[in-house]
Amino acid sequence: MSATTPKALFERHQSLIEKAVEVIHTREYWSPYSENMKKYAEDKVKSASADFKALCGQHFELETIKPTQKVTGERSPYGFELGISYDQPDLNALTEAMEAALPQWRDVGAQGRVGVCTEILHRLNEMSPLIGQTVMHTSGQGLMMAFQAGAPHAQDRGLEAVAYAWDAMKGIPESARWEKPQGKMDPLVMDKKFHIVPRGIGLVVGCSTFPTWNTYPGLFASLATGNPVIVKPHPGSILPAALTVKVAQEVLKEVGLPACLVSLVPDTQAEPITKELALNPKVKVIDFTGSSAFGNWLEENARQARVFTEKAGVNSIIIDSVSDLKAVTKNLAFTLSLYSGQMCTTTQAIYLPKDGINTPEGKISFDEFAQALATATSKFLSDNDRACMVLGAIQSEATAARIDECRKLGEIVLDSEQREHAHFPEARIHTPLILKVDGKDKATYSEERFGPVSFLIATESTDDSIRLAREVLNEQGAITLGFYSTDADRLNQAEELAMDVKVALSNNLDGGVFVNQSAAFSDFHATGGNPAANASLTDTAFVVNRFVVVQSRRHV
Amino acid sequence: MSATTPKALFERHQSLIEKAVEVIHTREYWSPYSENMKKYAEDKVKSASADFKALCGQHFELETIKPTQKVTGERSPYGFELGISYDQPDLNALTEAMEAALPQWRDVGAQGRVGVCTEILHRLNEMSPLIGQTVMHTSGQGLMMAFQAGAPHAQDRGLEAVAYAWDAMKGIPESARWEKPQGKMDPLVMDKKFHIVPRGIGLVVGCSTFPTWNTYPGLFASLATGNPVIVKPHPGSILPAALTVKVAQEVLKEVGLPACLVSLVPDTQAEPITKELALNPKVKVIDFTGSSAFGNWLEENARQARVFTEKAGVNSIIIDSVSDLKAVTKNLAFTLSLYSGQMCTTTQAIYLPKDGINTPEGKISFDEFAQALATATSKFLSDNDRACMVLGAIQSEATAARIDECRKLGEIVLDSEQREHAHFPEARIHTPLILKVDGKDKATYSEERFGPVSFLIATESTDDSIRLAREVLNEQGAITLGFYSTDADRLNQAEELAMDVKVALSNNLDGGVFVNQSAAFSDFHATGGNPAANASLTDTAFVVNRFVVVQSRRHV
Repeated sequence: MSATTPKALFERHQSLIEKAVEVIHTREYWSPYSENMKKYAEDKVKSASADFKALCGQHFELETIKPTQKVTGERSPYGFELGISYDQPDLNALTEAMEAALPQWRDVGAQGRVGVCTEILHRLNEMSPLIGQTVMHTSGQGLMMAFQAGAPHAQDRGLEAVAYAWDAMKGIPESARWEKPQGKMDPLVMDKKFHIVPRGIGLVVGCSTFPTWNTYPGLFASLATGNPVIVKPHPGSILPAALTVKVAQEVLKEVGLPACLVSLVPDTQAEPITKELALNPKVKVIDFTGSSAFGNWLEENARQARVFTEKAGVNSIIIDSVSDLKAVTKNLAFTLSLYSGQMCTTTQAIYLPKDGINTPEGKISFDEFAQALATATSKFLSDNDRACMVLGAIQSEATAARIDECRKLGEIVLDSEQREHAHFPEARIHTPLILKVDGKDKATYSEERFGPVSFLIATESTDDSIRLAREVLNEQGAITLGFYSTDADRLNQAEELAMDVKVALSNNLDGGVFVNQSAAFSDFHATGGNPAANASLTDTAFVVNRFVVVQSRRHV
Repeated sequence: MSATTPKALFERHQSLIEKAVEVIHTREYWSPYSENMKKYAEDKVKSASADFKALCGQHFELETIKPTQKVTGERSPYGFELGISYDQPDLNALTEAMEAALPQWRDVGAQGRVGVCTEILHRLNEMSPLIGQTVMHTSGQGLMMAFQAGAPHAQDRGLEAVAYAWDAMKGIPESARWEKPQGKMDPLVMDKKFHIVPRGIGLVVGCSTFPTWNTYPGLFASLATGNPVIVKPHPGSILPAALTVKVAQEVLKEVGLPACLVSLVPDTQAEPITKELALNPKVKVIDFTGSSAFGNWLEENARQARVFTEKAGVNSIIIDSVSDLKAVTKNLAFTLSLYSGQMCTTTQAIYLPKDGINTPEGKISFDEFAQALATATSKFLSDNDRACMVLGAIQSEATAARIDECRKLGEIVLDSEQREHAHFPEARIHTPLILKVDGKDKATYSEERFGPVSFLIATESTDDSIRLAREVLNEQGAITLGFYSTDADRLNQAEELAMDVKVALSNNLDGGVFVNQSAAFSDFHATGGNPAANASLTDTAFVVNRFVVVQSRRHV
């Protein structure tokens, strides 16, 4: 006898699930998982750092089908080896076991699967303080961001995917009686059943910078719709994914289901196995976050699967005029500093006319704006402790090296500097590099420069800014677009631009909301309509291609 | 001033649309467009044949962007040239004009677009008798089927696509106020807008056998979601599509919208232009019905577009045991005869054990079953007038030639014979060819033989039947699967098989429902989960990838 059942889990979380389904259609503010650390069990908050350290240097135990070798290699961007080893399963044995387990998971039904998924999220939420630590020491995010984005916000996104899946699945009746009148004769009567059938094994390929936030939507969308899921984390950020898989396996086992329905496949930078996994004919759904090169490769080659990709883009801001220069530059300073620009939503290209912009105090020149932004950023980062908390650490050597490479690309408006963390002297911490370039240097600013590098682009006019941004966004795509203007006609132009290039727009952000922030249940993350991502996280299209409906019918 | 507005059209049809949305979720019987010819205006029914003839030998007038050449070449399978010419537009000029018109159609909004689509369907319904004539004399379907499948049933499928589109779009709010509490500070408050933005130009590539039924789902799904649509009919079945486009253009013009939002691009067998159209970078959505070779080519090559294909498959029936041999063979006789097997749902492979099947009267041998089926079919077709009405005419020379080619593939159980139509002596009419083959001859029966050709396959046992069917369905795909058994365990096995191979199942059909019939609003046509089709007509997945959501947000 199992301790509980999937159906009981659904009933336990039913009101939460129903609220989630309501909110995806109103898109008002809602967050079921608190971002306030004080709301969590005090002992767990206190012990989080020690709990994380206790995992370091150990073998991480998971249910693993036919373990072949141990992999290791994570290093905290704060300057130490994690020293954790993980089992890598035999891929053939794993995919065979998962395919064999699929019918059981399918036959649990939509409601039970949604119950199991929500229970997993509930338990992940309870361990948020520890997850925050693991996200911090793999991604390099500052502790507060690692906690918020890595735990509750990621869980929000996970629940959002479950809500979309439930909304789509509950719209398909399990059965129907079909009764067709035949004039004076008896009607034709049939009983029909409608089965939600998953496509096959889902593969979620994680990234190093957001090992949970970018993993949960695909993981929970596939799982809720009946697909067993392989989590293939980035070799640099395995631990948060491993903890997630562990929780999922625990819940599955408690309801009497095979643990392998959610399996971890870790690999190393030296011996990557994503391509082999992605081409496995049993893998029918793939979620990927990472480089355009690899995302495009998946789209081109993994033709047996439905592939959902979030890739690189050139997030942009167009500045026409501002109503409060100080507020705007302060807002941008935070945007450029947060996690050292290692967010898929961070602005890289800022377009403004070379002859300046209007403010309530009169026209200011391009260079005055550049100086104001540099000053705002320096000032914001003047307190080193706060700076380190906001900047976090640079996840990879390659990103750190890129800062240097980019210095020569333009006139330096604000130079990047190294910072020393009070507690982690070895941490890889760098402040933003802001460069000035001419609108004509498209090749320079239209290539994604992942990390704390941004360009102030001197254009002929706001019309020219819009024209250039349109070109770059059409060619490279983006997840975010910002626009600043005090002119209603200009804001209408921005709205048209956003629709034409299919990028989400933020207008005149000058307060406590930042262009690189995306709130689950309200903001659609990526549109799926430009080269930066072929799908949105999360909308209906993100879930409904993960299953098909197989019907049967017979006479009554 | 326009005569009416899209919004007014929505209001006019609102109760119909709401009912349609309700029924796609209950999947009970519903058909808004009557299949009973007596329900249509008597004068239109009477004049339909003359109305069709009046179109023959003429130029068909449509709003055409930059006409370049006239194309012609339709020939009725009942033995005469239609002699109608159509304008072919310049493709560059056309796609430019359509792209330029897109923002107007997008900005009509979801509700208005749904209103326009429903009005188009309403007017198509009123001209159903004429559409029936045009479908008959292009596809070769018998008059009654051409009327029912070509007009009301096709309109049902069109409305079903509109209903799915409306259901998906109304789930996305046009705007939202987002208010995030900030403890003791004022909340963060933002106003958000959510725009439904179409992917681009839709291209619908029609087939010769179902020029409306297989065209309307893609046409209306794309149109309702904001994509201007190019209808590229099969060169042999242009007229029903041309009439459809004409009606769409009339409604668009009446509400003050550019007629080119729905455009016809006819071509000829000698100079096909589908590939050129499909690779046009402005074409972002493609719907295709036809050969696997071309469908797969589209999927492989038209990478800039979302491609929805319905291709070839091997529809199958497995016979384990029957409760009423006569009723079953009568049912199958109709299935094999209807439109001479030229339906994408017609059975080709019938598996049964070589040592026979159980009936209430005891075991009957394979050959006794074969003979019973042959007799039932001959008897059903013994009345020549009824036979010609059910069989219709063979659409293409190639299909007629295939019958001859197939005679040598097995032992003839029932030979195909030519029939003469009372009114159309030149009509290409052939009765079904039924062959007996061994289960080991997989290469023979597992290749689609489009037309009135079916195989009775002698297997070792029902388990062997299931095994062989599973292999063929996995490799070739199918739209329909039938199963006959009096054993509940066997029916459970059939249910498992259907889920595994992702093909819709019909159990023990022995009355007035046939495996090749698919009822809009209740039966999902194709699952999208096997090689016969990468999408279902129609479900949510069929509509939601045709648009993206672009949001904008600003502080209040």
